[in-house]
Amino acid sequence: MTVGATSWVIADGYIPPASTGPEPDMTSHDSACILNAGDAPAHVELFLYFTDREPVGPYPLTIPARRAHHQRFNDLEGPEPVAIGVDYCCLITSDVPIVVQHTRLDSRQAANALMSTIAFPG
Amino acid sequence: MTVGATSWVIADGYIPPASTGPEPDMTSHDSACILNAGDAPAHVELFLYFTDREPVGPYPLTIPARRAHHQRFNDLEGPEPVAIGVDYCCLITSDVPIVVQHTRLDSRQAANALMSTIAFPG
Amino acid sequence: MTVGATSWVIADGYIPPASTGPEPDMTSHDSACILNAGDAPAHVELFLYFTDREPVGPYPLTIPARRAHHQRFNDLEGPEPVAIGVDYCCLITSDVPIVVQHTRLDSRQAANALMSTIAFPG
Amino acid sequence: MTVGATSWVIADGYIPPASTGPEPDMTSHDSACILNAGDAPAHVELFLYFTDREPVGPYPLTIPARRAHHQRFNDLEGPEPVAIGVDYCCLITSDVPIVVQHTRLDSRQAANALMSTIAFPG
Repeated sequence: MTVGATSWVIADGYIPPASTGPEPDMTSHDSACILNAGDAPAHVELFLYFTDREPVGPYPLTIPARRAHHQRFNDLEGPEPVAIGVDYCCLITSDVPIVVQHTRLDSRQAANALMSTIAFPG
Repeated sequence: MTVGATSWVIADGYIPPASTGPEPDMTSHDSACILNAGDAPAHVELFLYFTDREPVGPYPLTIPARRAHHQRFNDLEGPEPVAIGVDYCCLITSDVPIVVQHTRLDSRQAANALMSTIAFPG
Repeated sequence: MTVGATSWVIADGYIPPASTGPEPDMTSHDSACILNAGDAPAHVELFLYFTDREPVGPYPLTIPARRAHHQRFNDLEGPEPVAIGVDYCCLITSDVPIVVQHTRLDSRQAANALMSTIAFPG
Repeated sequence: MTVGATSWVIADGYIPPASTGPEPDMTSHDSACILNAGDAPAHVELFLYFTDREPVGPYPLTIPARRAHHQRFNDLEGPEPVAIGVDYCCLITSDVPIVVQHTRLDSRQAANALMSTIAFPG
């Protein structure tokens, strides 16, 4: 089944710079959770926007047909690691429709906090 | 009144693998909260997508006319129970318009954390 | 300025049945936060849907022109108080466009948890 | 790339009136996180709506081309500071498309709570 859109925006990107609890489950993180429900692989690109410099990207991902992919921004490698404790926004594009949900786990204080929203389909 | 859409996506599915506090209220869970505001029963099917294998489903639900239904993924039985601590996405289809909201309660640490979002209407 | 829609759905309604901390700020609650940005009063009606009985409503609200209104479900009075600890969904209608955001504060455990989402514009 | 809309609404505005933890990271705050992915600067205006008086605004912001801007409502200055502990709604307009996400950090109790949602594109 084909469902979703080919561009998405997460406007509140931020990886909290400290954590409480066992790694990696309770490590503070920011995630883009993606569904490719279609029958073709999704070639996905992430572009990061900052407050004081030009955007960085693409960060390429390939999501096979009929697969989920939950990507922690903490784990993105090239073109450069995502800085911890820095505000960013993320634009996500795909050659086939996908669905994106943004979730953060923040364990800076003694108990973890969570937030989540479906991203904006551009 | 008819309101909603006939397909919905939750992209960040995950049942936290531990809990703090009295069961079942404070048990960590992932939920699909559904409204069928119409005057006919809704025949709903859930399909679960994973990172490393083919989708599983349908999980069938029938929601009577003019009824709410809050479904914990923890409580889904067939075709197979939903694995705890495993990333998934969920596609929800219905023969009549419904509205779906995704909520997680995570009580792995000492106080509970909550997140919620209206799902994506496909 | 006119912005919004004339019907909205909150699918995950629930007032947590316990609280920690000073009343009324930290009392567990479920809220519908509404903006009427237009130049005419909004005549709003809330209808509550349950898992095992017919809907209850309307709960009438009038929101003056150019005003915010944050309504705790805990404080709704007639046609009947909203039961604590019971799952519900809420359909909100208005004669002029409004915007609705759903927020819950859950202070059952030692620290409060929050969740929020823009409701679904029907 | 141009993505987004030119008017947005946050319906649940509220700056919690107390905080736990080191400033400014853990200070309770309400934020509008904005992406201007386009190639022209965005001239943005915020208007605040209240329950018992006329709206206040505009609060002007300029967001350069291809930049993120995470604005704490706590830090808005003119035409008047945003009152702490007071319910409000926020209408955001822009001369070019932007994307807005609303996030609150509430650290009134011992651990922080988070909530976030993509705002409503008007």
